[in-house]
Amino acid sequence: MAKKNIKDFIIEGTEVYLPSLSLDCVIFGFHETQLKVLLLKMKNAKQWCLPGGFVFKDEDVDEAAQRVLKERTGLSKIFLHQFNVFGKPKRSDSNFHREILRKDGIELKDDHWLFRRFVTIGYYALVEYSHVNPEPDNFSDYCTWRDVNDLPDLMMDHRHIIGEALNTLQTHLNYHPVGYNLLPAKFTMPQLQKLYETILNKNLDRRNFQRKILSYGILRRLEEVKKGGAHKAPFLYSFDLRKYHKALKEGLQSW
Amino acid sequence: MAKKNIKDFIIEGTEVYLPSLSLDCVIFGFHETQLKVLLLKMKNAKQWCLPGGFVFKDEDVDEAAQRVLKERTGLSKIFLHQFNVFGKPKRSDSNFHREILRKDGIELKDDHWLFRRFVTIGYYALVEYSHVNPEPDNFSDYCTWRDVNDLPDLMMDHRHIIGEALNTLQTHLNYHPVGYNLLPAKFTMPQLQKLYETILNKNLDRRNFQRKILSYGILRRLEEVKKGGAHKAPFLYSFDLRKYHKALKEGLQSW
Repeated sequence: MAKKNIKDFIIEGTEVYLPSLSLDCVIFGFHETQLKVLLLKMKNAKQWCLPGGFVFKDEDVDEAAQRVLKERTGLSKIFLHQFNVFGKPKRSDSNFHREILRKDGIELKDDHWLFRRFVTIGYYALVEYSHVNPEPDNFSDYCTWRDVNDLPDLMMDHRHIIGEALNTLQTHLNYHPVGYNLLPAKFTMPQLQKLYETILNKNLDRRNFQRKILSYGILRRLEEVKKGGAHKAPFLYSFDLRKYHKALKEGLQSW
Repeated sequence: MAKKNIKDFIIEGTEVYLPSLSLDCVIFGFHETQLKVLLLKMKNAKQWCLPGGFVFKDEDVDEAAQRVLKERTGLSKIFLHQFNVFGKPKRSDSNFHREILRKDGIELKDDHWLFRRFVTIGYYALVEYSHVNPEPDNFSDYCTWRDVNDLPDLMMDHRHIIGEALNTLQTHLNYHPVGYNLLPAKFTMPQLQKLYETILNKNLDRRNFQRKILSYGILRRLEEVKKGGAHKAPFLYSFDLRKYHKALKEGLQSW
């Protein structure tokens, strides 16, 4: 798809995609104290949008999400979580596509596949954004990390979809471990706390945080300390990956 | 739909429903120490199935789930949770529908809407099954509670869908309160423990259960005790509904 032009994509689309169904990926990017979301600016469009697309008629839906993300942003091997289906009849806005196409000199009939209602399946992921290199597809001018607290104008219900994905991510912090692949292999308690604070967008009490996170039994305190700071050298931690993955699967506090 | 015959339903279907999309409802029923699931046996079918259906072209997907459940089982005002999209290309089995229809003397072309691939959205709910009165729709002979540990032969991937719904329900026990509407307004600790044990399908340690469930702060111990037993009268509890609903929304252990 990446090298296909928009006209071919649209003409083929009617034949090759499942009608009425789309998917959208909310890729959150964490780095130091920043939480961002990956957005595209399509050519000829005023608004930004999530990387999204359609499902081939014979394609697994979850595999379609991986393919679409790769085609539109260049990102691969991202662990995507299905989080919600957005199925309101009025969520689709055929004018968005109509305007983009018109600027390319493409006029489609009102009953065209692309102008119909789409039920969209939302996926989300959380990555360390300095580890990945997003690249826009052929339909887009930009593919960029944008601050979740300062979003640009977005097409259709994409602002709502991002909000729901963020709610899901914040709720998951209550019962799933987070941090592996986001922090260095050895990290301090303040670094881990900052990750939680950034995702939750609030400050946490230092003592309560430490007590609670240690009670999960997913951390290993190392014999070494972090060197080079002005203050007393803080302890370094790493994740106990066996326990971490067990908790990912079963939840942090299972019966 | 309930009074419509299957021929009309199929002829109309092509026009009125979103193509390629369906939904299935996994309704778990708890009563005393039993966990069941509500299944339909369609006329002329050998296998059982979940109450499922399709989405009207202009209908909200979540509202469609409520309507389908009502039409197929008579159940209304059930709080349905979307839990997963089942999107494997091979999950649809056109032979199931073909055989049922053939026995009714209905032959459809191979490219008929009903024989195409469907991506299905799974919903689940948990109810007290002695409080509801399921009734089969016009397409089905039976609409019955079946033991989750002893399921009959099921169509397509419906056994897998039930398994995934049960996993979701069990995981939710780790961070959401459960019991309101399933237990009497006043209940004993053993009654509440039995509910958890039934859903989890395992025994729990009495002391650990009590300590953990009390730590959530959602229970109120009443001044009265349960009378009439042979043993020492156990304390009665009720849910603190304000805290219960807060925990439903925010999770039991939020940061």
